[in-house]
Amino acid sequence: MSNPFITPDALIQHWQGHRRLTRRVIEAFPEDKLFDFSVGGMRPFGALALEMLAIGVPMLRGIVSSTWETDFGRDPRPKSEILRTWDEHTKEMDALWAKIPPQRFQETMKAFGQYEGKVHDLLLYAIDNEVHHRGQGFVYLRALGIEPPAFYERN
Amino acid sequence: MSNPFITPDALIQHWQGHRRLTRRVIEAFPEDKLFDFSVGGMRPFGALALEMLAIGVPMLRGIVSSTWETDFGRDPRPKSEILRTWDEHTKEMDALWAKIPPQRFQETMKAFGQYEGKVHDLLLYAIDNEVHHRGQGFVYLRALGIEPPAFYERN
Repeated sequence: MSNPFITPDALIQHWQGHRRLTRRVIEAFPEDKLFDFSVGGMRPFGALALEMLAIGVPMLRGIVSSTWETDFGRDPRPKSEILRTWDEHTKEMDALWAKIPPQRFQETMKAFGQYEGKVHDLLLYAIDNEVHHRGQGFVYLRALGIEPPAFYERN
Repeated sequence: MSNPFITPDALIQHWQGHRRLTRRVIEAFPEDKLFDFSVGGMRPFGALALEMLAIGVPMLRGIVSSTWETDFGRDPRPKSEILRTWDEHTKEMDALWAKIPPQRFQETMKAFGQYEGKVHDLLLYAIDNEVHHRGQGFVYLRALGIEPPAFYERN
């Protein structure tokens, strides 16, 4: 095995930094705009946040246990409930990450029964999907006249 | 050093996959909308694409040589010229990547004289910035009534 680009420890820290920023974007939305506002006919940001929740922890559970759950609810809900789930998932992600066998990241798995790839690519896809949709959220906030949180701030 | 999350070879392939998708997003914009359209007062996508060009290759040059160039032009230009530069940078990125000493990714550098961090974090920041702004571009395209390329397609 060659030198790493990045270690598993540094990668989960990187992901959690993104999640702290995404949490601030969820918080920045007015309650009544989370599921009732979008641009260009796209999904509202609340739906995108629920998609992130449906991917992160379920992906990690699958990587740890090879059991893929796809039944995470997508019904609109209050912002406070989304943030509470977000915080629960933050802790669960750290706990699950610690259970991933070190060699697993280079192995191939079929996520959710349909997306086959190297585990590191599956995880980067989950992170990229969050960054991509959060970028949409930045546009929605600007269109609402709200200043989004700073992209570079991850603490 | 612990097991890698991902190797340098896999990471540059991952980045180049993103760059292929971003190239398709640039291509999808009508010529007259690249520098003259945005949503919510944000920068137009042409300006975002030039920012990506100002970060990618200059970042890699800096990581290889410790010389940080910040003079990449930001003036509006024809789409064909942006795509030509994009393709030149694609090749240059592969060439520069091959010159990065394997241990460099774990070292700390100060990018462009002001952003200090582990090299892997500096590189992930460059990729995340591309994904973030490309997500904005997806919204601009939808607002223009144009179907964006598929997010999951990276070939």
